[in-house]
Amino acid sequence: MKLLRYGEHGLEKPGILDGQGQIRDLSGIVGELAGETLGRESLSRLKALDVGTLPLVEGSPRLGAPIGLVPKFLGIGLNYRDHAEETGMPIPEVPIVFAKATSCVSGPDDPILAPKDFQRMDFEVELAVVIGSRARNVAVENALDYVAGYCIGNDVSERSLQKGGPGEWIKAKSHDSFGPLGPWLVTTDEIPDPQNLDLTLDLNGERMQTGNTATMIFTVAELVSYISTYMTLVPGDVITTGTPPGVGMARKPRVFLKPGDELVLKVAGLGEQHAKVVALD
Amino acid sequence: MKLLRYGEHGLEKPGILDGQGQIRDLSGIVGELAGETLGRESLSRLKALDVGTLPLVEGSPRLGAPIGLVPKFLGIGLNYRDHAEETGMPIPEVPIVFAKATSCVSGPDDPILAPKDFQRMDFEVELAVVIGSRARNVAVENALDYVAGYCIGNDVSERSLQKGGPGEWIKAKSHDSFGPLGPWLVTTDEIPDPQNLDLTLDLNGERMQTGNTATMIFTVAELVSYISTYMTLVPGDVITTGTPPGVGMARKPRVFLKPGDELVLKVAGLGEQHAKVVALD
Repeated sequence: MKLLRYGEHGLEKPGILDGQGQIRDLSGIVGELAGETLGRESLSRLKALDVGTLPLVEGSPRLGAPIGLVPKFLGIGLNYRDHAEETGMPIPEVPIVFAKATSCVSGPDDPILAPKDFQRMDFEVELAVVIGSRARNVAVENALDYVAGYCIGNDVSERSLQKGGPGEWIKAKSHDSFGPLGPWLVTTDEIPDPQNLDLTLDLNGERMQTGNTATMIFTVAELVSYISTYMTLVPGDVITTGTPPGVGMARKPRVFLKPGDELVLKVAGLGEQHAKVVALD
Repeated sequence: MKLLRYGEHGLEKPGILDGQGQIRDLSGIVGELAGETLGRESLSRLKALDVGTLPLVEGSPRLGAPIGLVPKFLGIGLNYRDHAEETGMPIPEVPIVFAKATSCVSGPDDPILAPKDFQRMDFEVELAVVIGSRARNVAVENALDYVAGYCIGNDVSERSLQKGGPGEWIKAKSHDSFGPLGPWLVTTDEIPDPQNLDLTLDLNGERMQTGNTATMIFTVAELVSYISTYMTLVPGDVITTGTPPGVGMARKPRVFLKPGDELVLKVAGLGEQHAKVVALD
């Protein structure tokens, strides 16, 4: 299933994509794509629906992030071997876990806001994992059972603030609009193996990032298990799992985002994000 | 006003303390102490109520954290001059901002759970600030206008995980029960000056921490303003503002929490927390 949320910011309704790629309204079935709605039983009920009988949504509404409430928004640093190498940083021995502010979550095609004093804004296409049920101390072998699905994430970062170790990262990665998610929450039945997904990011039509989740240092299952030993993961939590090579900071010459830039992010099976960078007054 | 939430975990109802220190049920007036309910207008409406006409809550129910939904739970590191000195760390030039997982929020008197492999659990009595309205790029002069009120926070920390800079801190500070808040959300009208509050923490009847918010390096207003330049603060966000001297790690010999320990935390005007450490199976 491809679940989504459509409508104006803050007023989004739940929806589902039908076989023809059209949006069907789910608001008669579930209140919000959040919390218990993301659990196994709830998703099974949605899967059993005859999608064609749901109201068709006309036009091309704005899409919001596909999860309505994100209790925790976690990122993983340097989790692709080829990206860790391009940054010149050592390969992490354990996952580097940092937080993004939940207030930075935005829709997949929403503008990325560029504050005047952010001069080193960078892009990071990522596989984002959405938790479906409470996970505490779960084993790697069972960890994927706690995942509701996946979406594209762009871990937008202001590099000038990302100094002094991951402690500073929350400041660098949390500005409003720095957490585009979507277009869809693609449930795990459609992504049986999250470790073989191509990811790309184009900036103004030029390919910047190319990767595959196969080069992750810590797999999705390992990350969920690892994090669950330190904190309880709850439905709706998002873990964005690190970025493949090609980020602007690691390029020669360096490339940073500026107003007017256009980004296209793709992850196999998860759709596309199309975002424009817009100056913030 | 002293606002609170009472009842079983996950089923708490909103309440308010009356002049006799009794709990009055607010559930006929507001749905939850969260989001817009924490805004200025909403709090003014609550303040205008004749509390004596609200239903009296019998007995001594469990108290939950006084905020029903915490979108962001931020901590500040080394924010008391006298505590920074006892740790031997340099005085920070800018606030050290880290995240605690929102899933660790618990009630003021709830047990503090001690996992078997956490051998260096420490306590930190703190002034916790609860945001009342959206704050982005706010000036220090106006920053307190965005605060709904204050409560006691205990920034429970597993020191063995708090290495390698603040980046690791989210792992050290996020276990379930490591974020007791309360007993009450005390609105700002009762705390006109947050920079002159005594804080103490007793462990098994012995005074461990003694401090006053006057020795904060960055004031509450400075912290709200500073953080709001990096991320938008939203109603219900909690910032726990650092701890005064006397933490277990800095004592000679060191003191760490063990099952059976009893903690009493006090902040002037904000009540008391009484917590027991309990082994987690």
